[in-house]
Amino acid sequence: MINTILGQKDFIEYLRGKKATLLLALSNTATANIKDITQAGIPGKIYLTPTLDSEFVCTGEVRSLKNIAQTPKGVPTPALISRAVHLLNPFSNIELLNLGLEVKPDVKYFKTYDFNIPPSKSIALDAKIDAQGLFQIATDFGQNFKSDDDYIILGESVPSGTTTALATALALGYECEDMFSSSYKNSPNDIKNDTVKSALKNIKEEDEFFTILSKVSDNMLIFIAGFILGLNNSKKLVLAGGTQMACVLLIVNSILKAMNASFETSNLALCTTKWIYEDENSDIKALLEMLDFDINAYYSDFDFSSSSHPALKLYDEGEAKEGVGAGGCLTYGFLNGLKKDDIIKKVESLLG
Amino acid sequence: MINTILGQKDFIEYLRGKKATLLLALSNTATANIKDITQAGIPGKIYLTPTLDSEFVCTGEVRSLKNIAQTPKGVPTPALISRAVHLLNPFSNIELLNLGLEVKPDVKYFKTYDFNIPPSKSIALDAKIDAQGLFQIATDFGQNFKSDDDYIILGESVPSGTTTALATALALGYECEDMFSSSYKNSPNDIKNDTVKSALKNIKEEDEFFTILSKVSDNMLIFIAGFILGLNNSKKLVLAGGTQMACVLLIVNSILKAMNASFETSNLALCTTKWIYEDENSDIKALLEMLDFDINAYYSDFDFSSSSHPALKLYDEGEAKEGVGAGGCLTYGFLNGLKKDDIIKKVESLLG
Repeated sequence: MINTILGQKDFIEYLRGKKATLLLALSNTATANIKDITQAGIPGKIYLTPTLDSEFVCTGEVRSLKNIAQTPKGVPTPALISRAVHLLNPFSNIELLNLGLEVKPDVKYFKTYDFNIPPSKSIALDAKIDAQGLFQIATDFGQNFKSDDDYIILGESVPSGTTTALATALALGYECEDMFSSSYKNSPNDIKNDTVKSALKNIKEEDEFFTILSKVSDNMLIFIAGFILGLNNSKKLVLAGGTQMACVLLIVNSILKAMNASFETSNLALCTTKWIYEDENSDIKALLEMLDFDINAYYSDFDFSSSSHPALKLYDEGEAKEGVGAGGCLTYGFLNGLKKDDIIKKVESLLG
Repeated sequence: MINTILGQKDFIEYLRGKKATLLLALSNTATANIKDITQAGIPGKIYLTPTLDSEFVCTGEVRSLKNIAQTPKGVPTPALISRAVHLLNPFSNIELLNLGLEVKPDVKYFKTYDFNIPPSKSIALDAKIDAQGLFQIATDFGQNFKSDDDYIILGESVPSGTTTALATALALGYECEDMFSSSYKNSPNDIKNDTVKSALKNIKEEDEFFTILSKVSDNMLIFIAGFILGLNNSKKLVLAGGTQMACVLLIVNSILKAMNASFETSNLALCTTKWIYEDENSDIKALLEMLDFDINAYYSDFDFSSSSHPALKLYDEGEAKEGVGAGGCLTYGFLNGLKKDDIIKKVESLLG
């Protein structure tokens, strides 16, 4: 049910039966407004996707819009998967990180961390992020982060986040042109590559590390990299995502290299979906192998093969693939005895 | 599985996966000795019901009598439901409040709070409760109440408690003649109304608030009202019950009104059963709408429709309806991934 991409099984086996907080990192980048760059949401309302995703995982309702975020092709958000797992075997806590949202999630009781971070601009011109300030906020947050649970599952919802991740990794000098995934089955490579090219053109040779990030990255990537370094292996952390989370680790890697520092990662892992692991248009494993530190990485052996719901079959055909912590949430479900078919049935019931 | 009566879903959704203590408020009133006023127990031994209920929820055994409390019609106590949930997905703690029992529950290890409160007399004459003293004990208890769990589910077992609740609400001036439920399908309105009439006759115009309660109420109603005010929103509290718990809130409401005080209730909710919510002879929603403060209220969408056990079918026909925290316990079960059919099967297995 849970397969190893890199490292050993022990990390994930240790988490069996342990209590988890699901932490959702939510952010908007105006990059998502570029036509057809992402299918993670409703055209013209793409910016609402992280807001709606988090509302749905917490309450089962989308409140800031009438219907659940769905792509024009009808691919439903992976938030359905995270919610289904929560219904079947609840997380002990769900907490939200507002890392620059246009619209704040409309949920009560659920802790929402606000940092007064503005949404970032399009990387095609200049994301205009205060990268160093944001990084400092994030390391402070990581240093002071407390949880009564045994581990943290950290998911994200950032429309067009694979584009900003690809631009970031390339700008930092990683050779990874064909390694980043997309919410599309047939990735709109022209639009995506054109955007990334525009972004990279904006980088000057003399630009320092944080200047590069401020131009081509997104808030989530920078924040989570800072959070990981601030946390400093003091808490078990599962990065629940695909190539965007791999990019976070590449950022961490670059910082460590620049500082010539070593970093203990025994409490760190990445968990993603089978759709990402088996994606022929990206390569999560290759991305993780570029890291100079050890990383445990896993994918959940879950698909919709036994479902007859046409919207869900699109996942198996290569649409959507990951997001809102789906891969890590599935892993959590399997670690607590859930069966694949129970999760499928629950997702189907949520679609109605 | 969990439906909203009043307020928003957020409170109950936040409790998903959280740890709960089940607190059972147990009390005897001699009102229950009036012939045919209640079917919550064995005629002549009605006073044993709260003792047996709590023994059964804690240990699975009824110790102070040979058989589980059952009505002459054969309606088994809702303690079966609370016990079934506890077996399938245990509460972190069960604790008992002895609010004036004839016979102390015969259980070891389970914390039992004793306050040296005598059982109350029949309201038909005068309940003779030291209402002010009891209220003071309860507010002190609430102020000092500590729990390691995320929330408290507070159930009750008080035979003839709907009669004392109705008398109390009427005596406090609420227009609620037809809003209180009964353990009977066909509520013995003559006996009940005669008793309430006798009780109200005993109220004098000059009687002050606590004098009124001392004559027509029961220990549970007064104690929990004081407990809520003492707790003062410092802990999440689910009142697990129907119209009796609504009466507790009406008492709180009257106190606040008399003191011209506001009260924060964001951590307070009421959870009941579908049998109460859909009862045509009572109106829990209307009772709650009389409150001047906001209250979250929910009911668990559970019935015995898929059971073939004749004793359980009586619930669906309108007998029993609620008690021993059943509605709140079902909600807790649903919040932790239990399915309706699993609970039904477990209840059936307890009946043998």
